[in-house]
Parts: sequence; structure tokens; C-alpha cells
Amino acid sequence: MFRKVKPHLQNEFDLIARHFHRPTPQTRLGPGDDCALLSPAPGMELAATSDLLVSGVHFLPDADPGNLGWKALAVNLSDLAAMGAKARWALLALSLPAADENWLAAFSAGFHACARQFGVDLAGGDTTRGPLVLCVTALGEVPVGQALRRDGAQAGDDLWLSGHPGLAALGLRHLQGEIVLPEPLCRLCLQRLHAPVPRLSLGEMLRPLAHAAIDISDGLMADAGHLAEHSGRTAEIFLHRLPRLPQGVERAVALEALLCGGDDYELAFTASARQRSTLAQIAAQLDIPLWRIGRMCADATPPAAQLIDSEGKIVPMEKQGYDHFHALPSLA
Amino acid sequence: MFRKVKPHLQNEFDLIARHFHRPTPQTRLGPGDDCALLSPAPGMELAATSDLLVSGVHFLPDADPGNLGWKALAVNLSDLAAMGAKARWALLALSLPAADENWLAAFSAGFHACARQFGVDLAGGDTTRGPLVLCVTALGEVPVGQALRRDGAQAGDDLWLSGHPGLAALGLRHLQGEIVLPEPLCRLCLQRLHAPVPRLSLGEMLRPLAHAAIDISDGLMADAGHLAEHSGRTAEIFLHRLPRLPQGVERAVALEALLCGGDDYELAFTASARQRSTLAQIAAQLDIPLWRIGRMCADATPPAAQLIDSEGKIVPMEKQGYDHFHALPSLA
Repeated sequence: MFRKVKPHLQNEFDLIARHFHRPTPQTRLGPGDDCALLSPAPGMELAATSDLLVSGVHFLPDADPGNLGWKALAVNLSDLAAMGAKARWALLALSLPAADENWLAAFSAGFHACARQFGVDLAGGDTTRGPLVLCVTALGEVPVGQALRRDGAQAGDDLWLSGHPGLAALGLRHLQGEIVLPEPLCRLCLQRLHAPVPRLSLGEMLRPLAHAAIDISDGLMADAGHLAEHSGRTAEIFLHRLPRLPQGVERAVALEALLCGGDDYELAFTASARQRSTLAQIAAQLDIPLWRIGRMCADATPPAAQLIDSEGKIVPMEKQGYDHFHALPSLA
Repeated sequence: MFRKVKPHLQNEFDLIARHFHRPTPQTRLGPGDDCALLSPAPGMELAATSDLLVSGVHFLPDADPGNLGWKALAVNLSDLAAMGAKARWALLALSLPAADENWLAAFSAGFHACARQFGVDLAGGDTTRGPLVLCVTALGEVPVGQALRRDGAQAGDDLWLSGHPGLAALGLRHLQGEIVLPEPLCRLCLQRLHAPVPRLSLGEMLRPLAHAAIDISDGLMADAGHLAEHSGRTAEIFLHRLPRLPQGVERAVALEALLCGGDDYELAFTASARQRSTLAQIAAQLDIPLWRIGRMCADATPPAAQLIDSEGKIVPMEKQGYDHFHALPSLA
């Protein structure tokens, strides 16, 4: 029980070590010992997050291993981005049905490509035999007391959104045969689905500007609702201020994807109206669209996100993201 | 894909939150945000480890959830102990086939009992629906540059072992019907199997004394071999210096459990002969047996652990722990 496969064991483990061990220049002690040793810089605190990804639940068993490697790390880095943290280290715990060299080569290439792009050391982990399951723990740094939390939104704040959430959800529906996307939209949507880009630079630049932030993993309405709830506010989201919907797909479908799709890992955040020009500069500098989609209102019961139409009326929403414990198929 | 179940979602998630959320006095920001925020004390570096535990591979699907909760954390804390680190924080990523209140109550009680006993905050994590899989990440602190590594053993060092490794392996064989243990040995062995005690106090006290350390998770011969290999030495283990074998079980069975069983999570470490009296005091103070079982020899090819009999001859060993990628049953 609870046995670990140590990378220095022979046979398949040499294979695993060969694919996963890379230089770890910002880690005092990398893979191979009982623990990794990490030294956060003075004055920094650590942001830590962990996600479990199960084959057949979170991804298809035949998912492209390169995409899977990238995305497994990227979704965790998105949590660091939402705190305004600088990404530094990751641990990867992996259960594999077999040590398939081609699969390992592609998976580790995807993982390391993401790690390299965002300056992350793969500092340690665990490999064992079993069904395909992975757990990534990401660790980042943020100056003490300066992290972007969910609970800091103030009444009167603007509510902002980065990028074009919804494209990944459209890509998934296309793959599932529910809709047919035209090119080049299709390729763009699949790229967002398979290789989301965590908004780490944006998160770090928002740190002194934003009052609260969250990454969109459950869907815009759901996650804006989480932010509002944690802050004890109501988030009013204006229909006419939402990002332009993509051409070539039915408007209702695109709108639902934008409001309820979470797989793009964009950021939602709030800031004082005084920051509008600075935020416009940041958007230009990073070449990331930033949309001022709404505002935070004073305390409300219950606090939540509300969609408002051009006449100022609340648009009824049936589905604000998914309660995944209900929505996902059981493997049992 | 890659969806997280946020603890503030309704229904089953309230249940999960109720069972897992506890005060986190040493954590700047606990569960509920995108990341946990942790502040290592000045002058400390962070020891980090992650273990993935899969139902049917690392534990039986009907494993007692209280034991499982304890052990899932304990085995990770053992990795911190082996580095001489003080345990501080844990993240728990959990995939569950259903939100069974009784199971959750027992699992979380076991997990929190272990966390409380060793001063650990459950700082964050992830819950999702799927087959029963858990991944614990444990984080501890150690003064910069003072961690106990595997690669520090010096020629002439004594090789030490804590406790009575092998009891857990005997307990497992009893449960599997391969042997029949008499009472009270049986109860003791099952306790070691189900509720191993990570040697955190010992690890911290060894920090200024030991040159290298490892926890016994793969078996004494295998893990002493890992330590020797990392240090570029040979570990000579003297048969006549091993801990006394338990009464009531065949000698060969008990010896194999001692040499190859890893589930007790005891520590093996090396120290200069000058530390013998101090180590005897520590053993008395902590009430943990410390056995001086061997010594580290100068460079050897290949570096490994060797068992030496009373005439000074090498005892041939077929099995030095398990290569678990081969030994464990596949679920595929």
C-alpha cells in the first residue's frame, strides 16, 4: 500500500526519469529525494494550488498526451495567475497503466513546454502504476499581503474580463459533434480548449491595481458569482458590454458558451474606475483584450452575478456553470 | 474538462466543505480561493512532496475511510520527517464516486486527527467526481541549507534505523490470509499498517546530527540502497545488529518483512560515530528504539546496501523491495 515508485528504480523508471527530469535552476533540491526543497524569496509568500485530473472524467482516455501535459500544468498556473502570483514550481503525481515511451515522450514534452514558457521548475513528484490519473501542484510567489483574493471587491468597482471566454467550450461542443464550427474559428477554439494560456503576466500586473480576481474555470456567470459571494457584493454584468461574439456560430450558442464555458482560463477582476486608463495601457502592452463588462454593487441578498440587458432588466439565467458533482458522468 | 468543484457550490459541496474545512491558524489564506497563501518563516526553506493514492492499487476499495484519511496524510508527512522538516501545511485533491456522508465524515476525521497531531493545516485542495483517488501534497519548513538529504552519507558513518520496520508488512500478509498472526502481535501489526506514525520529532532532532536520511517506504534494503546510491557509498547492514524479530511468527517471514516491508515509514539515517551517545539520549527522550544496524563504506561499484552475516559474508538477497511498476496488479 501507498508505495512510491522511486525514479532511481530500474527498468520503466529510468524511462520515466529520462522524460521528466530537467534542470531545475530555481530549485534548491529537485526530484530524487524524499522532498523537493524550495526557497521563496525574502518578503514573498507562497501561493499553492492542487488539481486532480482523472481519465474519463476530466479528459478522454485517448486525449492527445502532448495537449494533456500542457493543460495539466496550465490550469494550475491559471490559479496562480488569479492570485497575481509569479509561477515558480510544480510537483507532478502521475498514475500510469503502462510506461508507454511514446505517450511519456509526448506528455512530458507538453508539460515541459508549458513549464518553460512560464518559468516553472518541475521540482518533484510521484509515479505509480494504476489508471491514468494526474495531480499537479503548482507553487508561486507573491509579495506578502499583496495577493489578489476573491473577497476584496468593493461597491462601485468596475468588473473586468480578459480575452474571449467561451471559445474553448465551443471547441468542446464541436468535438462532441453537437455543433459544427467553420474554419478558422474551429482551429482557434480547439487551440483554446487544448492549450489554454494562463494569464500570468496579466495577473502580476493587476496586483497593484485590482481589488479582487478569479480565473474562469466554471464559467463567467458562475465564477463572477463566486467573486461576488466572497466579497459580499452583487456583480452586475451588462449584456451589451460583453466581448464580441465569434462569427460563424449561432448567437445563442456562442452566448451560452461565453457565459457558462470555463475552459479558457481567462481572468475576471474588479478595480476602481480610476484604473481604467492604466488597464487600457496594460491591455495594449500585453495584447490581451480587457473588457469592462460590469460593476460591483453594494451588499445584496443573496450576493451573486446578474446579467443585465440594455433596458436595465435582469436576464433570467438557468445555468450558471455546472455543479460538476451532478453534471459529470460517474465512472463507478 | 478540468473542472473543479468549488467548495462554495451548493448541495454535496456544502457537505464536503463541512467535513474538510477546519480553522487554519498558520495559513494566511485557507480553502476557498484560487490558491492557498502560506508564509514560510524567515530563514526557512520549504520541503514539498506529493503522493497519489488510487483505490484498488494503493488501498482496497473497501478500506476503512478513517484509516485511509490518517494514512494518506501520514505517508506524506513521513517524507517531510526524512528531510528533518517541520510539517506545516497540506493540500488534498480528492476524486469521489459519490458524496457519501458517512464515508466523508470518517475519512475527514482520520485526516484531521493526523493533521492535528502533527500541527498541519489543511490549507486547500480540489474535489471532483470520479473514481476514488486522492493526492496529498505536504509542505514543511526547514532552516535553509539544513535539510537531511539522501546524498550526504560519509564513509565511516554509522547506519541507523528507527522502530520496528516489518510489522506493517506482517499485518498486510495477515489480512491477505498468507500468515496467521497471534494476538497481541496481530493488533500491533495492523495498527502499524493502518495508522503509521511519521517520525517528525525524530527527523527534526536528527537535523544537526545526521549526514543523510530516508524514510523506509520501499523496504529497508531498497531504501538503504537508495541512500547509499545517492551518496556514492555502500551501506553494510549487519544481520546480527538488526532489530529483534517479533515472537509468534516464523523467523524467515519476519526477517523478510523487516528487510523488504516498507509500510511502517520508519527512518534510516547515517551519522558519525561521535553522535552515538547523543542518539541514545534522543531514543530515550522520544521513546523510539534507534538501532545501529550498519555502516557506510567508501565508494563502491555499484553503490548499494549489502546484508552481512556474523562471519562477515554478504548474504545474497533476491528481493530488495519491490519494483512496484512490475509488482502491483494493473487495473487496466
